[in-house]
Amino acid sequence: MVAIIDANLTRFGKRKENLLELAAEASLSLVRKYEIDFVVVSNTYSGEFNSISGINNLITTYLGMDSTPSIRVDNTSGSGGSAILVAKSLLDSRIANTVLVIGVEKMSDKNTKQVTSIIASLLSYEERRAGLTLPSLAGLMAKEYMRRYNAPRESFALVAVKNHLNGSLNPFAHIQKKVTLEEVLKAPVIAEPLTLYEFTPISDGAASLVIVRNEYAYSFTKKPVFIKGIGISSDTSIISERDDILNMNAVRRAGIIAKREAKVEKVDFAELHDMATILEIVEAEELGLLSKGEGWKAYYENYTAINGEMPINTSGGLNAKGHPIGASGVAQAVEAFLQIRNEAGSRQVKNARTGLSLSMAGFGNSATVIIYGDEP
Amino acid sequence: MVAIIDANLTRFGKRKENLLELAAEASLSLVRKYEIDFVVVSNTYSGEFNSISGINNLITTYLGMDSTPSIRVDNTSGSGGSAILVAKSLLDSRIANTVLVIGVEKMSDKNTKQVTSIIASLLSYEERRAGLTLPSLAGLMAKEYMRRYNAPRESFALVAVKNHLNGSLNPFAHIQKKVTLEEVLKAPVIAEPLTLYEFTPISDGAASLVIVRNEYAYSFTKKPVFIKGIGISSDTSIISERDDILNMNAVRRAGIIAKREAKVEKVDFAELHDMATILEIVEAEELGLLSKGEGWKAYYENYTAINGEMPINTSGGLNAKGHPIGASGVAQAVEAFLQIRNEAGSRQVKNARTGLSLSMAGFGNSATVIIYGDEP
Ligand SMILES: [Ca+2]
Repeated sequence: MVAIIDANLTRFGKRKENLLELAAEASLSLVRKYEIDFVVVSNTYSGEFNSISGINNLITTYLGMDSTPSIRVDNTSGSGGSAILVAKSLLDSRIANTVLVIGVEKMSDKNTKQVTSIIASLLSYEERRAGLTLPSLAGLMAKEYMRRYNAPRESFALVAVKNHLNGSLNPFAHIQKKVTLEEVLKAPVIAEPLTLYEFTPISDGAASLVIVRNEYAYSFTKKPVFIKGIGISSDTSIISERDDILNMNAVRRAGIIAKREAKVEKVDFAELHDMATILEIVEAEELGLLSKGEGWKAYYENYTAINGEMPINTSGGLNAKGHPIGASGVAQAVEAFLQIRNEAGSRQVKNARTGLSLSMAGFGNSATVIIYGDEP
Repeated sequence: MVAIIDANLTRFGKRKENLLELAAEASLSLVRKYEIDFVVVSNTYSGEFNSISGINNLITTYLGMDSTPSIRVDNTSGSGGSAILVAKSLLDSRIANTVLVIGVEKMSDKNTKQVTSIIASLLSYEERRAGLTLPSLAGLMAKEYMRRYNAPRESFALVAVKNHLNGSLNPFAHIQKKVTLEEVLKAPVIAEPLTLYEFTPISDGAASLVIVRNEYAYSFTKKPVFIKGIGISSDTSIISERDDILNMNAVRRAGIIAKREAKVEKVDFAELHDMATILEIVEAEELGLLSKGEGWKAYYENYTAINGEMPINTSGGLNAKGHPIGASGVAQAVEAFLQIRNEAGSRQVKNARTGLSLSMAGFGNSATVIIYGDEP
C-alpha cells in the first residue's frame, strides 16, 4: 500500500489567481522538497470554465518540472478520489516512486447560472432536456427522506449549522462564518425544502498530496498517513432509473471494498460529499457511520460534531469549505492527513487514528472511499 | 506486465453517431464477451466539442455496466497512450483484473476553425496570444529541418503519399484514397511549406482494448499481444523556450524507457504521431527508427513502406486514418494487436513480432511509447 508523506492546500473561495497559479500555490513547496517523478492532476472543467486544455502539461511547465510525466484524471466531482486511486496504482506498478497529486479548479470565471448548466452536462441527455440539475435532485431526495423516515425538515438544516461551525475553525475554508438554524431555514430556497446555506458555494482552489509506497514512508516523515484501503464503484448516470433515490449504491459498495481492504470497521472521523446537506446524512447511512433511516437524529445530539462520537466534515465539508470540483477529493485527504497527524488545530478530533473520505461524482454516479490510518 | 487480449475500433471519419454511440460501437462486443471490472476512458474534449462531462460514467451507463468503476484519463492528443499506462498500473496494483480502455472523440460537431482554436488551448498563454497553433509549429519545424539537413521539401510530401497508400488498405481509415506526390505538393498550403494532405483531418471515432495481466492472457486467447515496455515523459509546454525545435525530448526519453523495459532494440513496425508529415520523420529519428538528420532519405527508398525494412504507420497513421484525439493512441494499439496477430489483411507486415507506438500530446509536450510483442 501507499502513504501520504506531505500535503498542502490553498484557501478556497473566490480567488483572483488563475488555474496555474492556484495549482502552484498548493504544490510549489512540495515540489521544492521532494523528488517528484509523476504528477497526477485532478481537474474536470479547465476547458469549460477556463478555456484551457493540456492542464497537466501546463502545470508541470509552470512548476519548472519539464521532464516529469503527468496526466489528468477526471471523474467530475469525484475526480480527487479517482486521482488518488490512480496515484496508488502508479506507485504499486513501479511506474513511479513519488507521486504528486494536484487537485485544482477555478470556477469563478463563470457565473452561477453558467456553472450549474455546465455541471448539469454530466446528466443523461433525457434528464438534461427535462431541466434536471444536481440541486433539484437533492431537493427530491430530501423530500423522500422526510416522507419515509418522518425526518423533520430542520434536521437537514442542522447539517449546515454544524458544517459552517467547522468551517469557521478552518483558515482554508471558503465560508468561515457560523450560521444559526434560523438563518439556514430563512435563507432563499434553492430546491424545496433546501435553502442557500444547505448547498456548497462556487469556489476556486487547489490541494496537493505527496504519496509514496509504504516502504519509503518513514524515510520522509515520522508521521506518514497510510492509505489502508481504497474502493471505487459506480451507479447508473440516469438517476430516474434508479430503484430508490435514497439508495446510493456506488457509495455503499465503495465503502465495503475500502473497509474490507483496510480491515477497519469503525473510523474516528469522516469527510463526506455534502454538496447538499441531505447528501451528508444519506451517505453516512450508506457507509454505516449512522443508522439507516435514523441518521437525521444524530444532528440533534451533537453526534457528528468535532467533539462528538462520529465527527463528520471537520473541515467544514463541501458545504462551508467549498467545492472546487477537481480539488475537493484531494482536500478531503489533506484534512485526513492533518487530523491523523494531530495538526488540525482548533478542529482537531481527539485520538484521530483512522479516518474515511468519500469522493463522489454527480449524484452518486461514481464514488471512491478511502480509509486512512496512522499505521499501515 | 500486461497483455491485450482483444481489440476493436470504429471506422474513423465524419460520423453521424454521437460520443456514446461511437464508444458503444467500439466496445459493445467486448463488453458482452469479457467480465470487465474497470473502464478507462481516453477522451479530451467532450466538454468543448460536445458539451458533455462525466463521459466515463455516461458510457458505462450506456453500455449497461452500472456498477463498473470508471475514470477519464486525459493527456490531449496523447491521451490514448496515457490511458493504456493507467490501465496497466490498475492491473499491476490489483485494483482491477480486466480493464476495458475506450478511446473516443467526436470532433465534427465543430468546424475546422473552432477545432483548431480549441486545440490551441493546450499552448501556453503567451504563445496562444501570439496566434500560434499546432499546424504553424509544424511548418516552423519543417523549415528548420530542411535548412539544417538539406532535406528536399518533397521528402515530407512522400510521408503523406506513403500514409495515404496505407490508409487506402485500411477499412477503418478516415481517408481511404491514395494521393500522388504531385497532388500533395499542389494542395492548398496550411503552414508553409506543408499542405492540406500533410496534416491529419478532423475525425470522429473510437477504439477499444481489453487488457489483463500476463498470467491470465492465454486463458482468453491463443494469441495475446503483450505490452513488453511502456515509457512516459514530458517536455516544456512553451515550445519557443525549447533549445531546439528539432529535439523532441519527451519522445526520445519515453522511447528509451520503453525499450529498456522491453529489452528490445529493433521493432518490426511502428505507429507514430504524424499530426503533420514532418513529425513522423523527426519522431522516427528520436526513437532510433531512422538515423538522425537522415530520416528524410528513407522516404525515397521505400524503407518505411509496409514491405520496407522499417514499416511506419501501416494503419495510415493520423495522416490518413484520422485523429479523433482521445481515440488515436488506443487505435495505434489496435493496429499493433492486428499486426502481431497476423490479422492486418492487406496491410500485414511480414513476420511482425514486435511493434512500437508513440502517443503524443501537443507538440511533444508529453509522450508515451509502448513496445508490443508476441511473447511476454
Ligand atoms: Ca480528464
